Amino acid sequence: MALIVQKYGGTSVGTVERIQNVARRVAKTFDEGNEVIVIVSAMAGETNRLVALANEISDMPDEREYDVLVSTGEQVTIALLSMCLKSMGYKAKSYLGSQIPMLTDKAYSRARIEEIGDKNIRADLQAGTIVVVAGFQGIDSDGNITTLGRGGSDTSAVAVAAALKADVCEIYTDVDGVYTTDPRIVPEARKIDKISYEEMLEMASLGAKILQIRSVEFAKKYNVVVHVRSSFDDSQGTLVMKEDQEMETVLVSGVTFNKDEAKISIFGVPDQPGVASQIFSPLGLNNITVDMIIQNISHQGATDITFTVPKTDCKKALQIIEGVAKDINARGVSHNTNIAKVSIVGVGMRSHTGVATTMFDTLAREGINIEMISTSEIKVSCVISDKYTELAVRILHEAFGLDRQAQEA
Amino acid sequence: MALIVQKYGGTSVGTVERIQNVARRVAKTFDEGNEVIVIVSAMAGETNRLVALANEISDMPDEREYDVLVSTGEQVTIALLSMCLKSMGYKAKSYLGSQIPMLTDKAYSRARIEEIGDKNIRADLQAGTIVVVAGFQGIDSDGNITTLGRGGSDTSAVAVAAALKADVCEIYTDVDGVYTTDPRIVPEARKIDKISYEEMLEMASLGAKILQIRSVEFAKKYNVVVHVRSSFDDSQGTLVMKEDQEMETVLVSGVTFNKDEAKISIFGVPDQPGVASQIFSPLGLNNITVDMIIQNISHQGATDITFTVPKTDCKKALQIIEGVAKDINARGVSHNTNIAKVSIVGVGMRSHTGVATTMFDTLAREGINIEMISTSEIKVSCVISDKYTELAVRILHEAFGLDRQAQEA
Repeated sequence: MALIVQKYGGTSVGTVERIQNVARRVAKTFDEGNEVIVIVSAMAGETNRLVALANEISDMPDEREYDVLVSTGEQVTIALLSMCLKSMGYKAKSYLGSQIPMLTDKAYSRARIEEIGDKNIRADLQAGTIVVVAGFQGIDSDGNITTLGRGGSDTSAVAVAAALKADVCEIYTDVDGVYTTDPRIVPEARKIDKISYEEMLEMASLGAKILQIRSVEFAKKYNVVVHVRSSFDDSQGTLVMKEDQEMETVLVSGVTFNKDEAKISIFGVPDQPGVASQIFSPLGLNNITVDMIIQNISHQGATDITFTVPKTDCKKALQIIEGVAKDINARGVSHNTNIAKVSIVGVGMRSHTGVATTMFDTLAREGINIEMISTSEIKVSCVISDKYTELAVRILHEAFGLDRQAQEA
Repeated sequence: MALIVQKYGGTSVGTVERIQNVARRVAKTFDEGNEVIVIVSAMAGETNRLVALANEISDMPDEREYDVLVSTGEQVTIALLSMCLKSMGYKAKSYLGSQIPMLTDKAYSRARIEEIGDKNIRADLQAGTIVVVAGFQGIDSDGNITTLGRGGSDTSAVAVAAALKADVCEIYTDVDGVYTTDPRIVPEARKIDKISYEEMLEMASLGAKILQIRSVEFAKKYNVVVHVRSSFDDSQGTLVMKEDQEMETVLVSGVTFNKDEAKISIFGVPDQPGVASQIFSPLGLNNITVDMIIQNISHQGATDITFTVPKTDCKKALQIIEGVAKDINARGVSHNTNIAKVSIVGVGMRSHTGVATTMFDTLAREGINIEMISTSEIKVSCVISDKYTELAVRILHEAFGLDRQAQEA
């Protein structure tokens, strides 16, 4: 007998009919002799409906009350799914964040989980009850409702799996796993059978939006095996788990890309201590996330600094940086929104050389100019002109043999 | 400084615009130097929407989960109203049943309030915060969500007013008070300025659907002054309060009617001990509420028993009674759905004679036949043919001078 946590997103529970499908799948897992905890999101569209109500009242609705409002979405789903399971003859019980309890800090609408009680749920599981948990929501130490931020249900699921020491946390979604790259661009993209937490983190933050980054961090911290799979069929998906030897034999696990960033350069920055801080502090204060930063060696006491920001923040960032450039006597500022970041990710890179070179060579062979480079232990990213994005992804996917690797043992 | 509890029903909070109106009224009361607790219902239509979802899943949805589901309606309203007050610059905080806490028994969807914590709310009031409470919902001793049944928000409001020792509990509704009778039938009907709990109970249970009966019982038990008034203007409404001498000088406070009942008679019932129980037990077991029961003196060892039931239950009741009639060797069963019950209510009756006689005389004068009579200390009810309902109400309203009484001191 295994303890299985299953998480179903908003699309999977978007109608009563779909909730009934989820109930059948949950019941099947239970009938196979497992203990089951189900985490669900709000029905698709419901959170947007609630947010629209709040925005009718204020552009900046009160944060505490915002969480009271939007958490009703998941509450509706757990009630309906539990009803459904009961009408099918199963014992089932819904749990709000406050009933688990799922204790968080007090940061409304982006709360972090601090502690999860396992006593109540454990007792229900032992009594043969299917436990249905509202994702996304928690409670702070004063009994206020908190929420974990958009997509927080993934994190709820992994956190509950960690607290209850579940054997696996199955995340049901509308794709059947994690792919070596976007199959819409490269039809030869393959489903990855196993991927390490680190790789998944790099893939997710680089634009593969299958799992919330925070949920992967949580899974890594507590060593929870996450199974990303399709809610529409029974096929095996992708296991996100601790790195093993098998994974290391693969140099590159996936190719990702991101077209949502813009590049800003400051020329002729006086090369003196404190300059970088003068540039980036005001961006941070304005909640602008800076991704890549490149500063090269200086000539004649001046250097150039280039960095990327989300395209949506480009205008605001430019205004700030033009002011800063004057203050520090830099020569000028330029920007470019027609860029893309292409990355290769793989834990195998750690123990193999030449991976970055293969990437640069491959791009060069097609005449694709590299504008910026950034690397981590298990990732190499290049900024290129965005018109070459699809071409770059295709040739890199092929160059690292991702279309023909057999990952299985 | 007074502590004022205000309750707004589903129509008053049916749209964001109406919620903004409620916020303005609440803010005005606060600005006048009062402490304010607001109790709200779900936005009009919301509860029906949720119930429809449940019914898509099952005709008999699980009771625990049903309460989890429908209680989200009030949760949405308290969040929106609190947001609204905050955006207007007031301190405001929403309270779920579990956060008060509003402790109830475990009878899902018809829970009874057992205890109300006042500590949390009191602290907020002292800090100058407007407290916004979800009506209709509570929590049992195991932390399960319960609801008080349809219309339960009135009861929530009165209960909170009792627990916090509020000076008044204002119930805002779409009428501006309690009238001597239905103004659609008698244009001369007057708004009653003050009415006793007992009279209000009789009026409510007899068909004047302004206040939930349970809330009046609660108000009576804890001596809470209830002010029924309109959410559309500032006029004084009706105070429901402890009987005073002034009220006793009025013989009849109101005339009510009910067309929703049917009459069933059993003829030739053997006059022996236990027969009444044999007739009415199976009705009770089938959840059929019997209102009036008439049994007259017997002739030759047999008697006739007549009673009324809700029209919607008439068919079911007939089936049961026809079976019983055979078992007890009664002579036969008849029924009539074309009846109406007309009643006069007033605490003054207690100390005055001749009130019933005036009623009978008045009806007789217009040739209206009385089919059944039932009396209590402060009420006389007559069952008549339903085609005379409006006529009967009009002439009784006039006969007791309700169109010209001045109730004020």
